[in-house]
Amino acid sequence: MKKLGKQTIKFDNPPCITEVASIVGPKEAQGPLANYFDQCLEDEFWGEKTWEKSESKIIKETVNMSIAKSGIPSNNIEYCFAGDLLNQCISSSFGLRELNIPFIGIFGACSTFVEGLSLGAIFTEACAEHVLCAASSHFCSAEKQFRFPLELGNQRPQSSQWTVTGAGSAILSKTGSGPFITHITTGKIVDMGIKDANNMGAAMAPAALDTLLCHFKDTGRSPNYYDAILTGDLGYVGKEILIELAQDKGYHIKQNYNDCGVLIFDKDKQDTHSGGSGCACCATVFSGYFFKQLKDKKMKRILLIATGALTNATSSQQGESIPGIAHAVSIEM
Amino acid sequence: MKKLGKQTIKFDNPPCITEVASIVGPKEAQGPLANYFDQCLEDEFWGEKTWEKSESKIIKETVNMSIAKSGIPSNNIEYCFAGDLLNQCISSSFGLRELNIPFIGIFGACSTFVEGLSLGAIFTEACAEHVLCAASSHFCSAEKQFRFPLELGNQRPQSSQWTVTGAGSAILSKTGSGPFITHITTGKIVDMGIKDANNMGAAMAPAALDTLLCHFKDTGRSPNYYDAILTGDLGYVGKEILIELAQDKGYHIKQNYNDCGVLIFDKDKQDTHSGGSGCACCATVFSGYFFKQLKDKKMKRILLIATGALTNATSSQQGESIPGIAHAVSIEM
Repeated sequence: MKKLGKQTIKFDNPPCITEVASIVGPKEAQGPLANYFDQCLEDEFWGEKTWEKSESKIIKETVNMSIAKSGIPSNNIEYCFAGDLLNQCISSSFGLRELNIPFIGIFGACSTFVEGLSLGAIFTEACAEHVLCAASSHFCSAEKQFRFPLELGNQRPQSSQWTVTGAGSAILSKTGSGPFITHITTGKIVDMGIKDANNMGAAMAPAALDTLLCHFKDTGRSPNYYDAILTGDLGYVGKEILIELAQDKGYHIKQNYNDCGVLIFDKDKQDTHSGGSGCACCATVFSGYFFKQLKDKKMKRILLIATGALTNATSSQQGESIPGIAHAVSIEM
Repeated sequence: MKKLGKQTIKFDNPPCITEVASIVGPKEAQGPLANYFDQCLEDEFWGEKTWEKSESKIIKETVNMSIAKSGIPSNNIEYCFAGDLLNQCISSSFGLRELNIPFIGIFGACSTFVEGLSLGAIFTEACAEHVLCAASSHFCSAEKQFRFPLELGNQRPQSSQWTVTGAGSAILSKTGSGPFITHITTGKIVDMGIKDANNMGAAMAPAALDTLLCHFKDTGRSPNYYDAILTGDLGYVGKEILIELAQDKGYHIKQNYNDCGVLIFDKDKQDTHSGGSGCACCATVFSGYFFKQLKDKKMKRILLIATGALTNATSSQQGESIPGIAHAVSIEM
């Protein structure tokens, strides 16, 4: 691998995304991408007693499904990179405790899936034959933890987003038929002073811009190089902000840019306001929809930029702003 | 780099730990290692209004101190790996948001510092000249979040541990005069069904054993290869368990094994029961004490195994057991 500029790595032998899996909740099952996911759940509990246990089951079953689909014996998978939004990432650690694969816990808030793909790609080129990257989130456990008890039935402002219930998992391999991770651009923490925990899109858009510009600068590519540029969960509000911010810097991304949080729900019919969010948002939309578009050669090159809001409930109560981060992977056939 | 066995990587060009820094709180400043830390604070708040903000300041200043001591311009440091125990790792993200270095958030509970050294070592051999690894914890913010409000003055059982207030930071470089990270052994999640959140040592000891045995098996080394084998924060209870478990497997580690949580406090004078814990425990004890022992050639080879309890307050309330993990780095002059 080779460093391009300050933040991008170009792989000499691009790691292959061998297989993916995605499981989503009932709300996502009513959305426009429902047919692309491997499994849609009928209720939020999936037979478990709590939302946290349900989220653990979702990531566990998603990971197991990706391994089964790949046909790779699980003891040939050398590392597992995983994380989630729950305090101390318990969804991943409880869900994957029986996996018996060396485990590297990661936290990048909603950027976690792409952080995992980035680290996984480096390990795959440097020292491993196969690795696994996974992330999950759950609407109910996230609302309970970050905002208000669901039972309160609080009204949600129009800028708020709907945490995706689900998990995505990807297996990376040294060799294969693609798609391939050709570049990664690792983001810096960017804090523009936004304090509204119900407007994560605005808080994260500047981080997405920073990583996007850096990726273009480091690689010498321009927006039209990609069939699709995708952010993870900026939602409708953040998406518009990013388009404008990029335009101010001379990059016109409107033609081929979209956001996984915009794509996963039908805003008008599903009352999801600014769109989807959560670690599972880009993890399921990539693993469900875009992976197949690449495999079927309907798309050849995508840039996936997952954004994360590095905040918690206590920091907001203490008057802190919301730092954002964004990590990008270039995925090509 | 080269894979040895299932879980160990041996570096062809072992990354150098160029510089370290450590800042600790007032309790640690009364302990037996006080003179080895770079800075000891006089109170838990360090001029901040909350414990969380204080913890962020501690990791920020520790990281800045390690950069300053190294003499490496901060824009030559290519990646920062950091994490902590607070929900959503806010100590690291708030503390390091002005750092302006590509940021990779990690979570391994109290194993975070060694997880960072492991990832940092791989990046340093594979693609970076200099990287930074840091971790923090804070007694007050941890008690508040994981156990009870400090104001309650709850009695603590003898098996309970005292979260270290402080942070450790290490800069790894492609070249230098040592000490060097020669091997890393990445742990699996191990859950033996222990449910007592006041006995973390017992919950984590089986994970430490798993990684320890794996390291010996993968490398062909035996305990007496090392001048010191060190666990992160098993405390007095977990240390005894690990000695016994290892003995049952035919490894006699008693002679050269100790635990950073045992070393950092004076059990009798400081009322710290089973000893220190937290991400900062091994981060400060390594950065404060052992790094200097290696630099001064009083020791030549140490094995640092940091253990983490992958649990949170909610999972314990839901009757879950406490999964453990342990990551090891072999550090040699």
